[in-house]
Amino acid sequence: MPFVIGHGSDVHRFDDERPCRLACLDWPGVAGLAGHSDGDAAAHAACDAMLSAGGLGDLGSNFGTSRPEWAGASGTALLVESARRVRETGWALGNVSVQVIGNHPKIGPRRAEAEAAMSEAVGAPVRLSATTTDGLGFTGRGEGLAATAVALLYQP
Amino acid sequence: MPFVIGHGSDVHRFDDERPCRLACLDWPGVAGLAGHSDGDAAAHAACDAMLSAGGLGDLGSNFGTSRPEWAGASGTALLVESARRVRETGWALGNVSVQVIGNHPKIGPRRAEAEAAMSEAVGAPVRLSATTTDGLGFTGRGEGLAATAVALLYQP
Amino acid sequence: MPFVIGHGSDVHRFDDERPCRLACLDWPGVAGLAGHSDGDAAAHAACDAMLSAGGLGDLGSNFGTSRPEWAGASGTALLVESARRVRETGWALGNVSVQVIGNHPKIGPRRAEAEAAMSEAVGAPVRLSATTTDGLGFTGRGEGLAATAVALLYQP
Ligand SMILES: [Zn+2]
Ligand SMILES: [Zn+2]
Ligand SMILES: [Zn+2]
Repeated sequence: MPFVIGHGSDVHRFDDERPCRLACLDWPGVAGLAGHSDGDAAAHAACDAMLSAGGLGDLGSNFGTSRPEWAGASGTALLVESARRVRETGWALGNVSVQVIGNHPKIGPRRAEAEAAMSEAVGAPVRLSATTTDGLGFTGRGEGLAATAVALLYQP
Repeated sequence: MPFVIGHGSDVHRFDDERPCRLACLDWPGVAGLAGHSDGDAAAHAACDAMLSAGGLGDLGSNFGTSRPEWAGASGTALLVESARRVRETGWALGNVSVQVIGNHPKIGPRRAEAEAAMSEAVGAPVRLSATTTDGLGFTGRGEGLAATAVALLYQP
Repeated sequence: MPFVIGHGSDVHRFDDERPCRLACLDWPGVAGLAGHSDGDAAAHAACDAMLSAGGLGDLGSNFGTSRPEWAGASGTALLVESARRVRETGWALGNVSVQVIGNHPKIGPRRAEAEAAMSEAVGAPVRLSATTTDGLGFTGRGEGLAATAVALLYQP
């Protein structure tokens, strides 16, 4: 089979005290996301989708607490390295599609910028969409932000 | 790469006062879904998956408040137009797979009908499945309905 | 189109009184999952993704209450039979990617074992990843476990 797909998702709690980093961009004036890292749930979901497709486990097994050299790494750095590890297996990146689920930041006005930054990190097209949950659940109550992603790999 | 994939999801709150419209069908006697539109979360998730795959943003950027001509459009109309916009980019629709997550309506008895209606709107096979969340979360408590979708496009 | 994709998800409530069965493995010493079946949400999500891709409905329509011969079937048995039904339609299984979302069990140390067991049941590569939701939602509060999956089929 010359194609393989993968899926991933991620959630981070909002933390007003932190700067917001999402989809490889800074979002000034918006509540940030908690975490040991920058909390970039969009990047993390994309990494998990790529790593899963490539048969490489997940963020935890690649960059978790047993790999202290990756502690606090940015979402961008994790995307770059996840894509590199996937390519090392012989697969090429087809595309990644990421959806951000939460009340803020507003993705629309900066979608092209975010897609360009994520696509550059991955070295393949990354699409970014956004939605809300109509006031329901932890995303609807503004407690945190979720992101889900799918990735398609191919044999070059 | 002659293939590309996309992912989307949507959530609407139940509203007893409204008729239920889901997966391009009417569901008499079932609580409806809130929203400026008909609240058809299954159609909306499918649109987001197709638009994301096609590199066209999301429902908000295509049909949001800055596009008043689409205010209140039905899920069916949004599916037809999303598929048209995707094809306009040169991609063809392979298939879409949608899962409805919620306590009602019961999809099973009308799955074939719903799949036919959605497939006709998209002009390609749309699969529809359903699940519940064992009483957990906003879907389990019956506060609302979620839908998730993936779409596969190809170069014709 | 020689390829088709599908998506599925599943949720089960934790039940301390039951043994834990997940991803076709036993997890001694970990709270189990409620359900008429073994509650193997990872296997169930994978089944729904494959069945949806194959145009065969979902777990409920294939193995639900109207099919008493499948009452209480294990996740492994459902994976084997779902894969068989998909192949019967003429499609072949490319791969499945599953993500488990919850506080426990810890997948990482037994990922290879779980992937081998699921892959053997399906007869094609199944990838398994895991994540948590930062204390948010029913998965974060430890009320239950969710799993999501995508499947890719091809014309052999
Ligand atoms: Zn994360
Ligand atoms: Zn909607
Ligand atoms: Zn289940």
